[in-house]
Amino acid sequence: MGEFDLIARYFTRPVHRAALGVGDDCALLAPTPGMQLAVSSDMLVEGRHFFADVSPERLGHKALAVNLSDLAACGASPLAFTLALALPRVDEAWLEAFARGLLALADAHGCELVGGDTTQGPLNICITVFGEVPAGQALLRSGARPGDDIYVSGTLGDARLALEALQGHVALPPEVLAAARLRLEQPTPRVALGQALRGVASSALDVSDGLLGDLGHILRASGAGALIDTALTVHLMAASGPLTSANQRIDAELLHQCTLAGGDDYELAFTAPVARRAAVAAAALASATPVTRIGRVKAEPGLRLVDAHGQPVARHYASFDHFAAR
Amino acid sequence: MGEFDLIARYFTRPVHRAALGVGDDCALLAPTPGMQLAVSSDMLVEGRHFFADVSPERLGHKALAVNLSDLAACGASPLAFTLALALPRVDEAWLEAFARGLLALADAHGCELVGGDTTQGPLNICITVFGEVPAGQALLRSGARPGDDIYVSGTLGDARLALEALQGHVALPPEVLAAARLRLEQPTPRVALGQALRGVASSALDVSDGLLGDLGHILRASGAGALIDTALTVHLMAASGPLTSANQRIDAELLHQCTLAGGDDYELAFTAPVARRAAVAAAALASATPVTRIGRVKAEPGLRLVDAHGQPVARHYASFDHFAAR
Repeated sequence: MGEFDLIARYFTRPVHRAALGVGDDCALLAPTPGMQLAVSSDMLVEGRHFFADVSPERLGHKALAVNLSDLAACGASPLAFTLALALPRVDEAWLEAFARGLLALADAHGCELVGGDTTQGPLNICITVFGEVPAGQALLRSGARPGDDIYVSGTLGDARLALEALQGHVALPPEVLAAARLRLEQPTPRVALGQALRGVASSALDVSDGLLGDLGHILRASGAGALIDTALTVHLMAASGPLTSANQRIDAELLHQCTLAGGDDYELAFTAPVARRAAVAAAALASATPVTRIGRVKAEPGLRLVDAHGQPVARHYASFDHFAAR
Repeated sequence: MGEFDLIARYFTRPVHRAALGVGDDCALLAPTPGMQLAVSSDMLVEGRHFFADVSPERLGHKALAVNLSDLAACGASPLAFTLALALPRVDEAWLEAFARGLLALADAHGCELVGGDTTQGPLNICITVFGEVPAGQALLRSGARPGDDIYVSGTLGDARLALEALQGHVALPPEVLAAARLRLEQPTPRVALGQALRGVASSALDVSDGLLGDLGHILRASGAGALIDTALTVHLMAASGPLTSANQRIDAELLHQCTLAGGDDYELAFTAPVARRAAVAAAALASATPVTRIGRVKAEPGLRLVDAHGQPVARHYASFDHFAAR
């Protein structure tokens, strides 16, 4: 099967919102008048972002999910995406499953595949996603103000826990590993929550490299510091419950590492004025997304951690850097 | 140097036309009212699209040029681009030169770098480019009509000739190789010509995989056939002149292969009604881009080649397929 057959068979679908989809030199998009176009690109590399033996269906899902997560962090609604794919060889079963996972998530968010590129090379997936947001209403990293509450959506740390287990660093009961692995391989972009937080959150981003490192981006962009209550973050790992029930305690250091600096969470971290707590709760409810308040923005620079007794936690948790050894 | 330092040092620049550039979860673009957004993605892989030892400055140029060429083919004016880059390691001299070549071409076209991704992995460059075009005026592949003239811009075949020489299949005088190699490694996207052809050309695309194969896309999309005069295409290779002067004849078969099915030309192939010949000439003049009429669109399907005497040329020239052996 050649390049054009491959595109026709797996990646060409009719478009409804775009003016022109796959098959010409460019796709054509017509953003709604008054809307800004939000754009983000993410590249996934074998061995760095996923294992060679990952389920292609889950990989297709994840490749788009990490991009939709960026739209969510801006409060944008998904519109379309392009897919550039380097493949070592044409493996039809792999492509069929990859396309199935990719397009199922795309359909769930009304996000149309409008173009891209396929080529021969080491497996590499590059997606660029387009969303739209009312002009001036995008959630940015720079809006956090001292006194604002700090929140995180959903759960944290399960993806990292799965990675540690898959690398043989920790043993997990099979059903706990399966659930954690699903969080690693098939993350849920918080698109509805992001949109519901427009006009409510003062800043937002998506947690992809670890909570503390990513929060640091908000704090630097906003010129502020923060106090985080680790007695709250520690409960954000979904696996904690089943592990406790199974009487299998997880090392406290590993628990902090996973929840505070795990990576691959694709949850939203955001800030909002204390006066908007009811609005945050309403946004969480409207988007059916759990939200946990974990700390407070401070005027003093720096990110300080405290324990259940308000005592400082003097640990450094490194966030993920794609050019550092893991 | 870590991921964020790398982005800050080489790829973060102030934006003027985009509402938000590098550094948040998404870039924000505000297309001009009444314009459609044209989008294209191209991925360049080491060993497939360029040699490992290519000049990084030329590679930076080419990575954006092949994307700008897609905008040109639609008649769109460049607006912005995202860059996703997988690098085996952080090599500052390489990055500095790559960014220099990339951003010089970006500046020449007023095309702003607004976002992207960097990661560790086998060298892979994925650019997504955004342009804008008045709604309904994009040049498409589907508009060719029987009787239309067929044109190609600039020169054809020099990139392929350079590739053949670099692979040791043909010997070239050093100055001819240097010139041809420049066409391979630093192609010129025909952005101004594409815009000048809006309202003039009936169809257009950029020649990246070889003239005949790419023309085939126009013919299939337009439901038409074509007659091409190889006595005209054969003169489109810039190297022909110097080679003839140097009394070095190039094999006729190789000359046809390079000009008709060479690949990596990044010229525009387009059609226009006979009645618009003066307008085509004016567009060529306004954009300072040579344009050559090479044939005619026919109602009968199929792409037929004729020689200087109007006799059929019964040769098959395979176009480039990224999943076929080269």
